Amino acid sequence: MSGTVQWGVREAGDLGAALAALSGRFHNRLSTAQAVREQHGHTTTWHDNMPPDAVVFAQSTEDVVDVVKICAEHRVPIIPFGTGTSLEGQVNAPYGGISIDLSQMDQVLDVHAEDLDCVVQPGVTRKRLNEELRATGLFFPIDPGADASIGGMVGTRASGTNAVRYGTMKDNVLALKAVMADGSVIHTGTRAKKSSAGYDLTRLLVGSEGTLGIVTEITLKLHGIPEAVAGGVCPFQTLEDACNAVIATIQSGIPVARIELLDDLQVRASNAYSKLELREVPTLFLEFHGTEAGVKEQSELFGEIAEDLGGGPFEWADDPDVRARLWQARHDAYFADLYLRPGVDGVATDVCVPISRLAECILATKADIDRLGLVAPIVGHVGDGNFHVSVMVDMDDKAEVARVESFMEALVERAIAMDGTCTGEHGVGHGKTKYLDAELGGAVDVMKTIKKALDPLNILNPGKIVRI
Amino acid sequence: MSGTVQWGVREAGDLGAALAALSGRFHNRLSTAQAVREQHGHTTTWHDNMPPDAVVFAQSTEDVVDVVKICAEHRVPIIPFGTGTSLEGQVNAPYGGISIDLSQMDQVLDVHAEDLDCVVQPGVTRKRLNEELRATGLFFPIDPGADASIGGMVGTRASGTNAVRYGTMKDNVLALKAVMADGSVIHTGTRAKKSSAGYDLTRLLVGSEGTLGIVTEITLKLHGIPEAVAGGVCPFQTLEDACNAVIATIQSGIPVARIELLDDLQVRASNAYSKLELREVPTLFLEFHGTEAGVKEQSELFGEIAEDLGGGPFEWADDPDVRARLWQARHDAYFADLYLRPGVDGVATDVCVPISRLAECILATKADIDRLGLVAPIVGHVGDGNFHVSVMVDMDDKAEVARVESFMEALVERAIAMDGTCTGEHGVGHGKTKYLDAELGGAVDVMKTIKKALDPLNILNPGKIVRI
Repeated sequence: MSGTVQWGVREAGDLGAALAALSGRFHNRLSTAQAVREQHGHTTTWHDNMPPDAVVFAQSTEDVVDVVKICAEHRVPIIPFGTGTSLEGQVNAPYGGISIDLSQMDQVLDVHAEDLDCVVQPGVTRKRLNEELRATGLFFPIDPGADASIGGMVGTRASGTNAVRYGTMKDNVLALKAVMADGSVIHTGTRAKKSSAGYDLTRLLVGSEGTLGIVTEITLKLHGIPEAVAGGVCPFQTLEDACNAVIATIQSGIPVARIELLDDLQVRASNAYSKLELREVPTLFLEFHGTEAGVKEQSELFGEIAEDLGGGPFEWADDPDVRARLWQARHDAYFADLYLRPGVDGVATDVCVPISRLAECILATKADIDRLGLVAPIVGHVGDGNFHVSVMVDMDDKAEVARVESFMEALVERAIAMDGTCTGEHGVGHGKTKYLDAELGGAVDVMKTIKKALDPLNILNPGKIVRI
Repeated sequence: MSGTVQWGVREAGDLGAALAALSGRFHNRLSTAQAVREQHGHTTTWHDNMPPDAVVFAQSTEDVVDVVKICAEHRVPIIPFGTGTSLEGQVNAPYGGISIDLSQMDQVLDVHAEDLDCVVQPGVTRKRLNEELRATGLFFPIDPGADASIGGMVGTRASGTNAVRYGTMKDNVLALKAVMADGSVIHTGTRAKKSSAGYDLTRLLVGSEGTLGIVTEITLKLHGIPEAVAGGVCPFQTLEDACNAVIATIQSGIPVARIELLDDLQVRASNAYSKLELREVPTLFLEFHGTEAGVKEQSELFGEIAEDLGGGPFEWADDPDVRARLWQARHDAYFADLYLRPGVDGVATDVCVPISRLAECILATKADIDRLGLVAPIVGHVGDGNFHVSVMVDMDDKAEVARVESFMEALVERAIAMDGTCTGEHGVGHGKTKYLDAELGGAVDVMKTIKKALDPLNILNPGKIVRI
C-alpha cells in the first residue's frame, strides 16, 4: 500500500553519528536487531511494515530528552512506540530513524482518588491501569479494541465503546508532560478540572501522534465505578432497524454507557471466534450505568424503542462474567474477522457521521459491500455515529486491492459529504493523510504551519498526519 | 492597573493608511467616535480602558476577511469584540488598532435538532440562543454571569454554573469557522461528534481570545432539556461545612447539574440586590437534572450529605419562576457586590483547584480577606473547584490597590501550589499574563512559538495571553 503514498522529500540526517551517540548513552537499551526493528514498524492493519533503523527502550523522561537531543543534532527521525496496535501506520518509519519504545515507562505514578484523577507513564496499558485502580472504586473508561498504551491512546485521540457516555481521550486527559522537538520538557496543564490559562496545549498534543512532542506523563480523569451496571444484547430484523434504534436512543437523551452495532456477518464471526451463541442478525450490545433505579429506567426506555422498531427480545446479561465475555467479544471483533477469510489481511476503516445520517451511511456502505462482493463486517460505536468496516483483502490480488481502495475512498467521501469525518478514533498516521485535505481544506495548512514551527527539523514522526 | 504591565515593544503600523482603506470599504460601518471607541475598550473589571483607534461593525465573514487583510497590509492590530463583558482586559487595545465588533453577526444559522447541534454566528448571545432553541426541547448550557456572546465565550473558554455537569466551551464546541491572520478562512472540524483527523484546531482556538484567529461561525453541541429539574438552596453553619458538602457530593459521583457557593457576605449582597430573603450564612445553590426518579434520588443523596455536615434544611424551589429568580441572582452576584461599597471598582478573581483542596483554598482565602479588612464576597462554581472573589477596591487609594494586588497574587500562588490554575474561566487577557509563567513555565514558550507562526505580524489582539 505504501506505493500509493506521496512521501515527499526529507533530507537524510547523519544516522551513523546518531547511532554512535545513542549507543554510548543507552548501551544494550539500543537495538538494531532486524526482528526488533520489524516489530517496531508493525501495524495491525494492511500498511506495509516500514521498520526504523534502531529502537531505544526509554525508562524516563530524561531518556526521551537525550534521544530527542541526539536525533535533533543529527537530523534523524524519532517515532514513539507504545504497544504497536495502531491502525494507520502511526509507528512506521518511512524515512527510517529511531523508534523510541516507551513500554518500560509503565508506572502508575499517582492516584488521587479524592480528585478523581491519576498520573501515569505512557507505557501503562488501559487494562493494567484499570487493574491498578480496582481498589479505589474508580475506573478509566476509554477502551479501544486492543489493550493499547495510554501514551498511544493520547497520540491517536482514541476512544472506544464507552465514549458515547464518557467521551474520548480529548475529554479525559487533564494535562501532559511532553518532550518537545528541541528537547525541552513542558507541562501543558494542572490538575484543575478546568482552566482558561492560555492555549490548550493538552488538546493540541492529544491526537498529534507524536508529531509535535513525545508524551512522557499523562494526568487522566477517572470515573466512579457505577453503583449499578445493566446490559445485554438486542437483535433486530434489519440493519436499518438497528440503526434507527440507535438514533432514537441518542435523540431521546438516554445516557447509555455503551451502544454497539454488529451486523449479521460480524455476529457470525464473533460467534465462531468468541464462542457466543447469538442469532446471526444485526445486533446491538448495550450497557447502562447508574443507580439501580437509573439503569432500570434507562433500559426500559431503550426496550420500548427497540420494540417499536420490531427489535428484540432484549436479552439481559445479569451475570458480570457473561457481560465481560460479551464485551471481550466486541473488543476482539477485528481478530474474529480475520478468521472469516484466513490468510488475508484486514483493513480497518473508521468513519464518523452526525447521528441523523448513521442509518443512511451504514446502509449505503452495506450496499457497496454487497455489490463488490467483499467480505467486510460492520461494527461500530454507533451512539457516536462512528463505525468501522473490516475488509478482508488478499494483498496479492492487485485487482481486489484496487477494488477495496475505491470502496474505502467512497466510504470516506460519503462520510465527509454527510458532514462527518474520515476517522473517528483511529487517527491519520500515513494511511489517511490523503483524506485530510478533502475534509478540512485550508485547516491543513494551519496544521503544517504549527508542525513547522514546533518541529522545524521535521524529526518527530515525519510523514504522519501532515507532510511538510 | 495597566501601569504595572510590561507591554513589550510592538512596531507601529500605518494606522492612517489602514483607516483610509477601511473607510473606503466600510463607510459608516467604521467609527472613530470617542464614545464608541471607549465603549469597545470597556471591560467589566478594574483594568484601565484602552480604546482602539476605530471600530468596524462586521456583518459577514467576508467583512472580517477584509478587515484582517487591510490591517495585515498596514501592520495594525485587530481586537475582536462581542458584548464587552470580559473580565481580564481581553477587548482592550494597548497598542491601539481596530476593534472588530461582531455583535451584528447575530444569526442562528442552523439548528440540527436531530443531531443535537447548531451553527451560530459569534454575535449571538447565550440567552438569545436559548430563546431560539426553546421550541426544539434543546438548550445550550454554558452560562457565564453576563449575557455574553458565543464568540466571546469561545474566546475565553467560558463556563459557568452548569459546567460541573455539561462541561465548558472546550467540551461544547464541535467546530469553528475562523479567519486567520493572513485573511484565509478555515473550518476546524465537521459535525461528527468525535474525530481523530489531525490536530485539534477547534480546541486550539477555543480559549485563544482572538490572538490566533477570529471566529466567525461556531458549531455547538446542544443538550436535551431534562425531563425533570429540581433544586433549591441549602444553608450551612460554616464555610468549611459548605465546602466539605461540595467535596463529598462530587466525590460521591452525584451528577449534580449546578452546585454553587455563596459566602455569608455574598448572600447579604444578593439579598439586597436581588430581593431575596435568604439567611445570611454560607449557602449552596443546587440544581439536579434528570428523570423524575433520578432527580429525586440525587437530591436525597445530597440531602444526606448536607445533614451529616450539619447543613440544611435544604429549601426546595419547586416553582420554576422561583428557581429562575435564584439563578438570576446568582448570575447577578458581581453586580450585587458593587452595591456593598458604592462608587468603587470590583475586581473579579478566578482560580480553580482540585476538588480535594477546595475547602483549604477557600478558607485560607477567607482568612486573608479578614486579615486585610477587604470587602470581598466569595462565590463559586465549586463543583469544579472553581471560585471567585469579588474584591471592592477604591482605585484612588494606592495603598489599598497595592494591598488588593498582593492579596490576588497570594490567591493565585496558593491555587497554583495546590496544582490548580490562575483562571478557571475568565481567561488571561492582559490581566493574568504575568501568572502564566508561574503556572505553566516552558509551555508558555510553546504558546509563543505557535502565536508567532500563526500571526507573524502580531496583529491579532496583541498583548493578550502571550507577548511576543
